Amino acid sequence: MINIIDPMITAPKGFKASGIKAGIKKSGKEDVAIIYSTVPASTAALFTTNAMAAAPVIVSRRNVEKGKISAIVVNAGCANACTGEQGLKDAEAMVQKTAELLKINAEEVLVASTGIIGVTLPMDKVEAGIKKAVNALSEEGHNNARHAIMTTDTFPKSVAIDFNFGDAKITMAGMTKGSGMIHPNMATMLAFLTTDAAITPEMLKLALTEAVNVSFHMISVDGDSSTNDMVAIMANGLAGNKLIDSPDMPEFINFSIALKEVCIVLAKMIARDGEGATKFLEVTVKGATTFADAKKAAMTIAKSPLVKTAFFGQDPNWGRILCAVGYSEAEVVPEKTSLDIGGIKIVDGGLSVSFDEKALRDIMAEHDITVTVDLGLGEAEATVWTCDLSYGYVKINGEYHT
Amino acid sequence: MINIIDPMITAPKGFKASGIKAGIKKSGKEDVAIIYSTVPASTAALFTTNAMAAAPVIVSRRNVEKGKISAIVVNAGCANACTGEQGLKDAEAMVQKTAELLKINAEEVLVASTGIIGVTLPMDKVEAGIKKAVNALSEEGHNNARHAIMTTDTFPKSVAIDFNFGDAKITMAGMTKGSGMIHPNMATMLAFLTTDAAITPEMLKLALTEAVNVSFHMISVDGDSSTNDMVAIMANGLAGNKLIDSPDMPEFINFSIALKEVCIVLAKMIARDGEGATKFLEVTVKGATTFADAKKAAMTIAKSPLVKTAFFGQDPNWGRILCAVGYSEAEVVPEKTSLDIGGIKIVDGGLSVSFDEKALRDIMAEHDITVTVDLGLGEAEATVWTCDLSYGYVKINGEYHT
Repeated sequence: MINIIDPMITAPKGFKASGIKAGIKKSGKEDVAIIYSTVPASTAALFTTNAMAAAPVIVSRRNVEKGKISAIVVNAGCANACTGEQGLKDAEAMVQKTAELLKINAEEVLVASTGIIGVTLPMDKVEAGIKKAVNALSEEGHNNARHAIMTTDTFPKSVAIDFNFGDAKITMAGMTKGSGMIHPNMATMLAFLTTDAAITPEMLKLALTEAVNVSFHMISVDGDSSTNDMVAIMANGLAGNKLIDSPDMPEFINFSIALKEVCIVLAKMIARDGEGATKFLEVTVKGATTFADAKKAAMTIAKSPLVKTAFFGQDPNWGRILCAVGYSEAEVVPEKTSLDIGGIKIVDGGLSVSFDEKALRDIMAEHDITVTVDLGLGEAEATVWTCDLSYGYVKINGEYHT
Repeated sequence: MINIIDPMITAPKGFKASGIKAGIKKSGKEDVAIIYSTVPASTAALFTTNAMAAAPVIVSRRNVEKGKISAIVVNAGCANACTGEQGLKDAEAMVQKTAELLKINAEEVLVASTGIIGVTLPMDKVEAGIKKAVNALSEEGHNNARHAIMTTDTFPKSVAIDFNFGDAKITMAGMTKGSGMIHPNMATMLAFLTTDAAITPEMLKLALTEAVNVSFHMISVDGDSSTNDMVAIMANGLAGNKLIDSPDMPEFINFSIALKEVCIVLAKMIARDGEGATKFLEVTVKGATTFADAKKAAMTIAKSPLVKTAFFGQDPNWGRILCAVGYSEAEVVPEKTSLDIGGIKIVDGGLSVSFDEKALRDIMAEHDITVTVDLGLGEAEATVWTCDLSYGYVKINGEYHT
């Protein structure tokens, strides 16, 4: 039984957070956040596969291998990517400064950055900001923290849940930032998760990998990942549950289900806040022979500029959807393919069928729309989330300054 | 020595063409074209790999296997795709009608369609149109023909060349239509080429495949191909050259070079006429270890919505370009990567270098811009052509009706 609670990254026991204004963002808004666990936490993280991985990714990837982390320091406004040796020094300095002020080891700190690529960090501002952020750490700092990691996001994104777990009650929370991008091929996706569950770093990594596969990876942050993408979870064990140390424990299954829930909620928020989005699209492909095929077809639909502009234009241009399925490289038999939009059957056996045009127009006018393709070949199914492609997207990305 | 001549698809000996108004396009403009060779021509064609291949693709793919074709009939305004059995019957009927009126075998006719997907052809209009088009065939029909295959193209696209070939003079011509799409993942790309060279269907197929690999495939019409894509070349032998029947003949090499030239000119016209395009971008990746890697990196840059919107905004956001290279899956060593835009070095050894900002602003304000990435790893190189992503693209595709 999972309960949705106040969406505070500090909801689990023993976590504090802060978000302060360091002057890195041109807007002058919050731009340095810290998430801190009062005891070292089992930690797992997944990073971008981009060959141009940013300096903070390189540093955090190394530190997380120790398995125990006490703090994550994040800045927005500058990605510290494509910054060479200087960038690495700066990321290390962020870690050092945070550790020094928190009186912990530097290996217990992860660092993340998001913002413009190719520019080095204004380290005087960053270091002063870290000091301010450490001083501001509190259980009430959750709201400032989630604001401090935003770039083009139009709303802050967080969620928290709790659930019973034998005698213990586990609390789990997450906050994230999108790029708002529809298929965020270069925008940074950051997600930070906290929980008071007791779980080993190995089991945490396993649960996180499974959860990300059905959540953040389903809004396309994998192959197309940015220089800075990072998803990290800290589990500090203060809930007092029996340590989860094997994938065969029923507790591991329950923990994994809860983590998937949290990650899916956050991932959907990112898709909903796509840059310039006027529609939120849930694309499901079922009847595939494999999950990989279902995902390929669903992702191809979700990434197609022609499909996305059609939804922006409220035009049920189903030919573009089938065409995307056709070039997705999933196994497809045209005569077995069917399609519905918002529950209205549009295509059956590969052919257009007659439908209530007024009802479909009403569905296309809504903000949230489901698209379901049935390949009619097997049992596998995948759902991805995306948004439309609007004038707003072009405006935001044509005017974002370098 | 290749000479550019009047861009008439009928420039090679023995070809006639026509384009007439059949009433298929809502605009009432020319929408049925025929290209006719007075003698059966060696013919080769390449088709979409889309699993939802349109009916005309299925019919033409079969007919071209015979190797000798006398006519190609094309309609715009309706793609005859996702139309099932009826679509196949209609495509066959187009072939039959054309053959009957031209007094040739049905197997000597190719058929192509472009336009809206999922709607069946208005066959009464199509058949009347074919009759009109056959009657209109002439050497002067080239201009109407190239207009009749257009959809959202803003200008007609054709080229013709001639070159000496031993004692004979060979003439070669082509006409094409894009979708105007930037990465035309669902829009139809059609290209028709004519030549009076004497060449076997096998050698023609080989030369066409090579030429398409460095031209139409470099504007992304392969993996992302539409339901209807087709490139066909007819070679009727009337130039009287010695028959090209082996890849080892010097004449084959010369013929291939000429064909590449023609195909590259046409492909660049398609990219230049990208839907809503305000910029024409030539993206070269050199210093790669393999051609495949160079192409992957160049294509990833060319397809990136973030790169394309940056060029629309005249913003030299080089971080987005490097980021795209980073996730392209090409072999990349950040410290060896350099970048120039319009000949101005922006990044060297993976790091931003100082440059003349005024000069770069001037370059970004131009219509044609070159982007060159040097991976610094090897000798392989690839060039792709694309355009920017503008409000116009969203407008055209949000409003294109189903």
